[in-house]
Amino acid sequence: MISSKLPKMFYGGDYNPEQWDEATHQEDLRMFKLAGIDIATLNVFSWALIQPDEVTYNFEQLDQLINNLYESGIYTCLATSTAAHPAWMAKKYPDVLRVDADGRKRKFGGRHNSCPNSPTYRKYSEAIADKLAERYKDHPGILVWHVSNEYGGDCYCENCEAAFRVWLKKRYGTIDQVNKAWNTNFWGHTFYDWDEIVLPSNLSEHWGDNNSTFQGISLDYSRFNSDSILDCYLLEYNAIKKHIPNSVVTTNLMGFFKQLDYFKWAKHMDIVSWDSYPGLTTPVSFTAMAHDLMRGLKDGQPFMLMEQTPSQQNWQAYNSLKRPNVMRLWSYQSVAHGADTVMFFQLRRSVGACEKFHGAVIEHVGHENTRVFREVSQLGQELQQLGDRTLDATVESKVAILFDWENWWAVEKSSGPTVSLNYVEQVHKYYASFFRRNVQVDIISVDSDLSKYDLVVAPVLYMVKPGYAAKLEEFVQNGGTFVTTFFSGIVNETDLVTLGGYPGELRKLLGIWAEEIDALHPEHRNKIVMKDSLGKLNGSYECGMLCDLLHSEGADVIAEYGEDFYQGMPVITRNTFGKGEAWYIGSDPEDSFIDGLLEQITADKGIQPVLDTPAGVEASARYKDGKQFIFVMNHNAETESYDLKGLEAHDLLTDTRLSGSVDIEGRGVQILEVNKA
Amino acid sequence: MISSKLPKMFYGGDYNPEQWDEATHQEDLRMFKLAGIDIATLNVFSWALIQPDEVTYNFEQLDQLINNLYESGIYTCLATSTAAHPAWMAKKYPDVLRVDADGRKRKFGGRHNSCPNSPTYRKYSEAIADKLAERYKDHPGILVWHVSNEYGGDCYCENCEAAFRVWLKKRYGTIDQVNKAWNTNFWGHTFYDWDEIVLPSNLSEHWGDNNSTFQGISLDYSRFNSDSILDCYLLEYNAIKKHIPNSVVTTNLMGFFKQLDYFKWAKHMDIVSWDSYPGLTTPVSFTAMAHDLMRGLKDGQPFMLMEQTPSQQNWQAYNSLKRPNVMRLWSYQSVAHGADTVMFFQLRRSVGACEKFHGAVIEHVGHENTRVFREVSQLGQELQQLGDRTLDATVESKVAILFDWENWWAVEKSSGPTVSLNYVEQVHKYYASFFRRNVQVDIISVDSDLSKYDLVVAPVLYMVKPGYAAKLEEFVQNGGTFVTTFFSGIVNETDLVTLGGYPGELRKLLGIWAEEIDALHPEHRNKIVMKDSLGKLNGSYECGMLCDLLHSEGADVIAEYGEDFYQGMPVITRNTFGKGEAWYIGSDPEDSFIDGLLEQITADKGIQPVLDTPAGVEASARYKDGKQFIFVMNHNAETESYDLKGLEAHDLLTDTRLSGSVDIEGRGVQILEVNKA
Amino acid sequence: MISSKLPKMFYGGDYNPEQWDEATHQEDLRMFKLAGIDIATLNVFSWALIQPDEVTYNFEQLDQLINNLYESGIYTCLATSTAAHPAWMAKKYPDVLRVDADGRKRKFGGRHNSCPNSPTYRKYSEAIADKLAERYKDHPGILVWHVSNEYGGDCYCENCEAAFRVWLKKRYGTIDQVNKAWNTNFWGHTFYDWDEIVLPSNLSEHWGDNNSTFQGISLDYSRFNSDSILDCYLLEYNAIKKHIPNSVVTTNLMGFFKQLDYFKWAKHMDIVSWDSYPGLTTPVSFTAMAHDLMRGLKDGQPFMLMEQTPSQQNWQAYNSLKRPNVMRLWSYQSVAHGADTVMFFQLRRSVGACEKFHGAVIEHVGHENTRVFREVSQLGQELQQLGDRTLDATVESKVAILFDWENWWAVEKSSGPTVSLNYVEQVHKYYASFFRRNVQVDIISVDSDLSKYDLVVAPVLYMVKPGYAAKLEEFVQNGGTFVTTFFSGIVNETDLVTLGGYPGELRKLLGIWAEEIDALHPEHRNKIVMKDSLGKLNGSYECGMLCDLLHSEGADVIAEYGEDFYQGMPVITRNTFGKGEAWYIGSDPEDSFIDGLLEQITADKGIQPVLDTPAGVEASARYKDGKQFIFVMNHNAETESYDLKGLEAHDLLTDTRLSGSVDIEGRGVQILEVNKA
Repeated sequence: MISSKLPKMFYGGDYNPEQWDEATHQEDLRMFKLAGIDIATLNVFSWALIQPDEVTYNFEQLDQLINNLYESGIYTCLATSTAAHPAWMAKKYPDVLRVDADGRKRKFGGRHNSCPNSPTYRKYSEAIADKLAERYKDHPGILVWHVSNEYGGDCYCENCEAAFRVWLKKRYGTIDQVNKAWNTNFWGHTFYDWDEIVLPSNLSEHWGDNNSTFQGISLDYSRFNSDSILDCYLLEYNAIKKHIPNSVVTTNLMGFFKQLDYFKWAKHMDIVSWDSYPGLTTPVSFTAMAHDLMRGLKDGQPFMLMEQTPSQQNWQAYNSLKRPNVMRLWSYQSVAHGADTVMFFQLRRSVGACEKFHGAVIEHVGHENTRVFREVSQLGQELQQLGDRTLDATVESKVAILFDWENWWAVEKSSGPTVSLNYVEQVHKYYASFFRRNVQVDIISVDSDLSKYDLVVAPVLYMVKPGYAAKLEEFVQNGGTFVTTFFSGIVNETDLVTLGGYPGELRKLLGIWAEEIDALHPEHRNKIVMKDSLGKLNGSYECGMLCDLLHSEGADVIAEYGEDFYQGMPVITRNTFGKGEAWYIGSDPEDSFIDGLLEQITADKGIQPVLDTPAGVEASARYKDGKQFIFVMNHNAETESYDLKGLEAHDLLTDTRLSGSVDIEGRGVQILEVNKA
Repeated sequence: MISSKLPKMFYGGDYNPEQWDEATHQEDLRMFKLAGIDIATLNVFSWALIQPDEVTYNFEQLDQLINNLYESGIYTCLATSTAAHPAWMAKKYPDVLRVDADGRKRKFGGRHNSCPNSPTYRKYSEAIADKLAERYKDHPGILVWHVSNEYGGDCYCENCEAAFRVWLKKRYGTIDQVNKAWNTNFWGHTFYDWDEIVLPSNLSEHWGDNNSTFQGISLDYSRFNSDSILDCYLLEYNAIKKHIPNSVVTTNLMGFFKQLDYFKWAKHMDIVSWDSYPGLTTPVSFTAMAHDLMRGLKDGQPFMLMEQTPSQQNWQAYNSLKRPNVMRLWSYQSVAHGADTVMFFQLRRSVGACEKFHGAVIEHVGHENTRVFREVSQLGQELQQLGDRTLDATVESKVAILFDWENWWAVEKSSGPTVSLNYVEQVHKYYASFFRRNVQVDIISVDSDLSKYDLVVAPVLYMVKPGYAAKLEEFVQNGGTFVTTFFSGIVNETDLVTLGGYPGELRKLLGIWAEEIDALHPEHRNKIVMKDSLGKLNGSYECGMLCDLLHSEGADVIAEYGEDFYQGMPVITRNTFGKGEAWYIGSDPEDSFIDGLLEQITADKGIQPVLDTPAGVEASARYKDGKQFIFVMNHNAETESYDLKGLEAHDLLTDTRLSGSVDIEGRGVQILEVNKA
Repeated sequence: MISSKLPKMFYGGDYNPEQWDEATHQEDLRMFKLAGIDIATLNVFSWALIQPDEVTYNFEQLDQLINNLYESGIYTCLATSTAAHPAWMAKKYPDVLRVDADGRKRKFGGRHNSCPNSPTYRKYSEAIADKLAERYKDHPGILVWHVSNEYGGDCYCENCEAAFRVWLKKRYGTIDQVNKAWNTNFWGHTFYDWDEIVLPSNLSEHWGDNNSTFQGISLDYSRFNSDSILDCYLLEYNAIKKHIPNSVVTTNLMGFFKQLDYFKWAKHMDIVSWDSYPGLTTPVSFTAMAHDLMRGLKDGQPFMLMEQTPSQQNWQAYNSLKRPNVMRLWSYQSVAHGADTVMFFQLRRSVGACEKFHGAVIEHVGHENTRVFREVSQLGQELQQLGDRTLDATVESKVAILFDWENWWAVEKSSGPTVSLNYVEQVHKYYASFFRRNVQVDIISVDSDLSKYDLVVAPVLYMVKPGYAAKLEEFVQNGGTFVTTFFSGIVNETDLVTLGGYPGELRKLLGIWAEEIDALHPEHRNKIVMKDSLGKLNGSYECGMLCDLLHSEGADVIAEYGEDFYQGMPVITRNTFGKGEAWYIGSDPEDSFIDGLLEQITADKGIQPVLDTPAGVEASARYKDGKQFIFVMNHNAETESYDLKGLEAHDLLTDTRLSGSVDIEGRGVQILEVNKA
C-alpha cells in the first residue's frame, strides 16, 4: 500500500511539464509548495517525445523533471505514456491503428488509439515500460507506476479477428461447443471452421448502440475485448515488475465504465486508482456508488482518487464551475468512501488543443490569486493537518449490492422486452435508497464472499453464472437476506435461457414462477398493492417498465398488482429459505416503495445507519485501530443540523468536540472521530 | 388453392426443431396435438445445417422431422432455407455478401444477407431448392413450399452495378433514352456510355433516408432492386416447379413493405402469404388495410396468414403482451379480410440469440399450463369446429382504393414541396374512413379492372403511368365515381413532370388547374369552407400540409379556402364527366371532412356498410355459395351492442341464432352466417 | 463595375435551355421580353454536354443561345460549367471524386463533387474556362463571367493530404513550428516528419459536427480547404483574364457560408455576387445582415444579387410560397443594402430531378398567366422606370460590426465551455439591434480600416490576430468606441491561449480581468443589475449561457451580476482609453439590454437612424451624387405609418412627393429620394 509511505494523504495530480518551458517549471514548483502538493503524475502522454523512432529513447528531460520534483519534496506517479502512440509509429506500422465498429481503418489522431492486438503496439508499449522501469528502478522519487491512461475502446481489425478465434478456441475447445453456446442453429449460423467466425460489428451482427442479432457472440466479443486490453496492461505491468518487484503499479479506471470488466482487471493491480468526473446532473449518490465500486474492486482496499477537476470540465455540453467549497466537499466524499489520495487533472492548464478549457490548479492567468487556487491550497493545508489519521482505514458494511460487468453487457444487448431497462440505473435505485439513510454498502462481485453480509441485493440478476445460485442459496440458508428483482435468473453465462420457467436457477430460492413478462410503454403504469402493511409500507405504490406475471410456489405474497389483466397476481414476494429470506420485486417500483422495503428489511436485520441526517446530508464512516471516522457532508447549499444522539465526537477538521445537536454549514464537511461501539 | 386440401383452416406456424433435441421433438408433437395444430413451417433457417459445404447435403434430420409430423397428422410448409447463407459460403465466396448504401462490404452475420445478384448465391440457392423439391416431390406431408423468408434489403456491390446497367439497357435501349428519362442535362449528368452509370447510393446521389439528387435514377434503382430479388425468388420457384408442377409455392410477404413491388411479385406466387406484426400503437384499421392489400395482390384470392405472434414481440421498443383474447380477435380479423390459415411465429420459443424474447406457442417454461398456450388451444379447437365453412370465401367490394409501389417510391423521394407527405398515411386516411363505417374496400393496383367498382379512390396519385389517365376517364365516363387528392397527376413513370399545368394528365377528367402548391408548416393550418351543405358537411373544416391553388376549368366548386391570400380559391371540386363524377381534394383535410364526404359519395352510389356498429366494433364480410359470413369484431375492452335491423343471423362460433339488438363482449368475435341478400 | 454598362439594374437569372428544345427557347424569349428580363446566366451545369471527352468541345448550341439572347436584347452572364464534372471524367480519372470526412471515396453523382486538389479537375476546369474565354472574348453579349457555381464542400483524399503538407510547409517552414503552433506535446502528437501529418477527419481528430481533439489542426485544415478551392477559382479566373483582361469575373457566394473565407476570396473577384435564400423562419434582419456582409466583402462596393427564388424553394422541409409582394419587397431589400442586379434562380422550371419543385419565372404550366409571372413582370417594369438612379450608389455607415471567418471556425470547434455558443447568432444579436432602429451598419473584416467608423462592435472576438489588439487600441485612443463581449481575447491565430489572464491581448484596452468563465445550462439564468441608470437602462436584465467572473482593472463597472456566488461581480464594464471608450459585455444579455445599451452608445456618438419607423418597417439608405435614397420597406402584412419629420422626399416608385406622416401598405416599398443633409 502506497498510503503507508507518507504521513498523510498524497495530494497533487497530472502534470504535463513537457508542454512548458524551464521558467514555467520553476514557477510550478513554487506554486505546488504553496498548495501543499506532494505528488505529480508525469509522462502520461509523452511517448512521441521520449521515443522519436524505433530505437531511440530520450529520458533526459524526464530525469530532470523527476529530480526537480523530488528535490522539492514532491513524489512522482510515473506514467508509461502508452495511451497514445507516436505519429511515426502509425505511419510506419499501420497495424497500431484501430478499425472501428463500422469497419473504418482509423488514421493517426486522438488518443486511446492503439489496437490492443497490434504486434507493434504490444512490442513497443512493453519496451517503453521496460526502459522506464530499468532507468528509474532505484529512484527514490517514484512512488507509483501508472500504466497507460484510462484504457478503453474497441477494435475490429484483422489482428483482433484472428485473436478472437484463438480466444474462443481457448474458451470453448471445439467449434461444436461454440455452436452450442451461441445457439447458432438459429438463423443458420452453424460454423464448421474457426475461420468462418468474424467479429460482431456494424458490418455483421450489430446495429445502433445496443443491438445484436446474436447476443452470445456479442457477449464473448465484450469479454475478449476487455481481456485483450488487459493483456496490454499486463505486458507493461510485468515489464515493470521484472525490474522492481515491489513497485506499486496501477492504471487509472473510470468508475462504471462499461467496456472493461474491472473486477477482473483489479486482480492484476497493486492498488485501484480512478478518475471521478461527475457531471452537472450526476446525483451525489451516484458518485458515492462509483467510489464504493472502486473500493469493492479489491474487496475493500482503499484506492487512489487519481483525477478530479479543481473546478471546470470541458467535454460536457455545459461546463459549469464547481461552486465554492464543492471541490473540497467532493474530495472528502471520495475519502469517506475509501480514497487515500486526492489528486487533480491537472496541475497546470494546457495552452492549446481540446483540453485547454479544462480546469487546473494553475489557471491560464498563471498566478495564485484565483478562487480555484485558494480552494486547492486550503484543502492542501487541511490535509496536512489531518495527517495520517484516516489513512488505510476501512469501511464496514453489512449490506452488499452485487454488480457484474458481464450481466451489464448481456442485459443491455438483449433484444426485448424493453429498451427502457438500464442495469446501472437499476443498481443505483437500490444503492440510492441505502445512501439516503446513510446505510453503508459494499459493491461486490460474483466472486466475493457473502458470509460477512447480512443483506445482499442483486438488482436485475439476468445472468446467473455457474454455481452462483447455489452460493446464494447457501447464503440464505445460513440466515442471510437476499433481494432481487424482475428480469433475474433468465440466462446462463452464454446468454442461453434457463428453461423450465423464470427465474430459472433462482426459482427454488425465491419460491416463485414468472409466467410472462409484460413490457409497459413509459407512460403506462401499474400499481403495487400491499396485502398487509409492512413497516411503513401500506396502501399502493406505482410501478412500471416490466411487470412479471408471477405465481407463488411457496413464497409469501407481500403485494399484488392493482391494475390490468394481471391485477391480483403477486408482484412482491418473500420466501423463507433455511434461516433466511429471499425477496423478489416483480416490477420497477417508485423510490418510496424501495425506501420502505429496504428500511424494513434492514431493521429486521438490525442494520443501523451511520447517523440520522437530514436529506442532502451524507454520513459515511471509515474504521481504523478501534476508531470510527464519520464523514458528515452537507451537499445542500444551506446550513443543516443533525443530532449525535448521545455520541461524543471530535471533529478533526476544526479540532472541536461535538455532541447533541450539531450544525453543519452549506457544502460543509466534518470528520467525526468516535470510539468504535 | 391449398385451402381446398383440408376441411378447415390450417393452424400452426414456424417450427425450428433443429434448435432442439429429440426428446423435445416428441414433447412438441404432444403439445401440437393439444393445441389443434396441423401445419408446421420447417427448414426456414437451416441452410448451413443441411449443406455443410459446396457438394454435401444432409437431409436425414429433415426427413425424420417431416415424417414425424406427418405421422402425427401435421402437414409441412417446407421452406427452402435461403434467407440466410451459410458462414462457409461467405468465407469462400465473398460475392454473396452485400455492400450497403454507404459502400461498406458486409461481413457474415444477421440474415437477409445475400446479394441478389451474387452468382454464388443464385447458384446455390437454386440448387438447394432443386435438391429439396427432388427429394420431397412425392412426400404427402408437404403442403406448401415457402421460398426463402421475408425477402428484402438492397445491395450496392459491383455485381449489382453491372446488373443495373443490363437492366437499364433492357428498359431503355439506348443511352440517349436514359438521358432523356432522367433529365440528365440537369446538373451536368449527361451519360455517353453505360459504364458511366453508377448505382445511386449515399456515395453518389443519395443522403439521409429519402433524399436524392436524381429521382429518376433512384426510382429505377428501386425497380431494379425489387426485380433482382424477384429473380432470386423465381430461380427457386422454377426449380421447385420443374420437379412438382402442381406444387403450391409462396414466399412470406410483409404487408406495406416498401422495397418490393408486391403487385409484380404476386403474379409469380401460387398463393399470397404474409406476416402480420402490428405494433402497440398500430390502428386496427391499418392492420385491416394490410390484409386487404394482401388479398388485393392476387385480385381477391384468399391468402395465408403465415406468421403472427401468439403474444409478445421482441424487436419493438416496448414489447407488451397481447391482452387476453386479442390474439384470437386479430386472428379472426385476418380471416375476415381473406386469410384461410392462421399461423404463428413460432411454435417453440428459442433458447438463445435475438428472438429468444419473441413469444411462442410453447414458451420457455416448456409446458402447456400457460395463458398463451391455453388461448392458442382454445382457438385451435374453435377452428376445428368452424370447419370449412368460410374457406375460399371471397370479399365483395364496390369501393376500390388504388395503391402503387412505384408511386410510393416516387412520392417519398421527392425533393419538396414538404417532408410531411407520407403516401401510406394518406392512403390509410381514406381507408380508415371506410373502415369506421364498415364499408368493404379492395386495394387495387394500376393493372386492376375498374369496371366492377362504383367508386375508385386514388390518394396522392402523383405518378400517372401510361394509359392510366385514359383508363380512369373511361371508368368515369361509364358512370364511376373517382376521388383523388392534391399532389396527383404531377409526373410520368420516370418522374418527369407532365407540363402544361397540374394535375397534368388528370386535368381534363378533374376539370381543374392547380396553379401553385403551397406547403404549410405543421403548425400552420387553413380551412375548407363549404359553399353549400353536402350531406352532413357544412360550415368549415381544417386542412393543411399542402394547399393547391386551384382554378376550376369546368368543375363545380364544392368548398373554398377560408384563409391566407388564396382565401376564396377552390379547395374541393367535383367534375361531371360522362355519366360519372371526378372529385379533387386540394389539401389534406381533417378526418371528419373525409368521413362526411365519403359518406355522401357512397350514399349517392348506393354503397351500403356491412353493418352499422358502434365505434371500435368492426364488421367485415366474406361470401361463399350464396351465403354471407359477417365477422363482427369488438376491438374495445368493454361489451358493445349493435342492431341487426331485421337481419336473421347464425353465429357460427356459439351456434346460436341472433336477431335484433346483439351484445358482443369486449374483444369478442361473432361470425354471423346470413343468406346473401 | 458592370452596373455602369446599362442604364438600369440588370434583371434576369439562371437559364438552362440545354434542358429544352428549340421551340421552347423561342417561347422563352417572348416571355423574357414580357417580364423585362435583360440578363440570363447560361452554361452553369453544361460541362458534360459541351465536353463529351478529353479532347472534344461542342460550343455550337451555346453560340446559338448567346446569339439568340443578344439579338433579343438580353446579355449573358456566362458560367464556366465546372461545378459538376462529367460522368466520363469520374469514370476515367477517379481522382476527381472526393473522399468524405468518413474516409469514403465518393462515386459519380450530385454536384460540387470535384476534389479541389485533383490534378485532373484542375487541368480540365482551367482548360474549359480557357476555351470559353478564347471563343467568346469578343462577343458583345457577354457581360459577366460566372466561374463555377456555389463553391463549397471538402475533401480528405490522398491528393488533399499531400497538398495540406505542402500548404503547412509554406505556412510554418519547419515541423518544429507546426508542433509549437498546434501544441502537439499535448496527447503525444509530436511530429518528426511532414509525412506523419494526416488530414483531420472523422477517422483521426474529429467526431460529430463540431468536435476536434486538436483545434489547431482543424483550423489549419479549414484554412487549407478554403484556399484549395480558391486556387481552383483562380485557375479559371486567370484563364479568362488571359484572353479578356477587362472582363468582369465573379462566382456566386452564399452569404454566411462557413467553409469559405469570403473576405479572402473577394480580393480575387471583380464583383461580388451571391444567392439569397432566406428560409421560412429567417428573420428579415438576418437577410439584411447577409446583404451587408456581401457589400462588406469589397469594402462597400455594390454587388450582384445573382439568385433568389421567384416564389418557392424545394430543399427546405416545408417549402411555402412567397406571399404576394414578398418577392418584390425582398428584391428591394437587397438593392437597399447594395445590390445592383436582381436575378432569379431560375427562368424556367426544370422538368425532372431534384429541383423540379423549385420555383421559376416560367412555371411548369408554361404560360404567363400565373401570379408568379405577373409579379416578376411588374417588378421588371418598375426597374425599367427606376432606371439608373440608384446604380452604383453607396451605403454610408458610422457603425461597423467585425466578422471573421477564422474566428467562426475557431469558436465553434472549441471543446468547452458550452455547446450553446453560435458565433453568427451572436453577431446577429447586435446587428438586429441596430436594424430595429434603422442604424446603418457595415460588416467589416480584420483588414478593414477602422478610422472611418465611430463605433466598432466585435461580438465574441475569441481569436485576436497579430496586430489587431493594437489596431483596436489605436482606434479607441483616437476617440472611437469599441464594444466586445464574453469569450473574447482568448486565443491567438493558431488557437493557443494568450496566457496571463483573459481577455488576453484586449485586457489593457478593456481594463478588466476575467478570472473564470461559468457556463450555464440553458434553463439556468443570471441577472445584469445596473449600478446606475444609463439612458433607458435601469434595474435588471436577464443574461446567461456564459458568465465571465470579472475584476475591474480600471474600467467603470456599469452593471453587476445579480445572482449566484459571483453576485456583485462586474458583468458590464466601460473603460476610458485615450479619447475613446471600450465596453465589455461579460455575459449573453436579453435583447432589451442590448437595445438600451446600443441606443445609449450611438446617441453618445451622435449616430442617427436613417428614419424612425414602426417595428417591422425597415429603412435603409444609399447615397449617390449628393442624394440620399431611403428604401422604406414594410415587412408586416398590414399598412403602417411613419413620420418624415420635416424631411421632403420624392418616392421614385410612385413619382409622388411625400412629407409629414406617410402610410406604407403591407409588404410595400417606397424609395425616397432626398437631398443629402
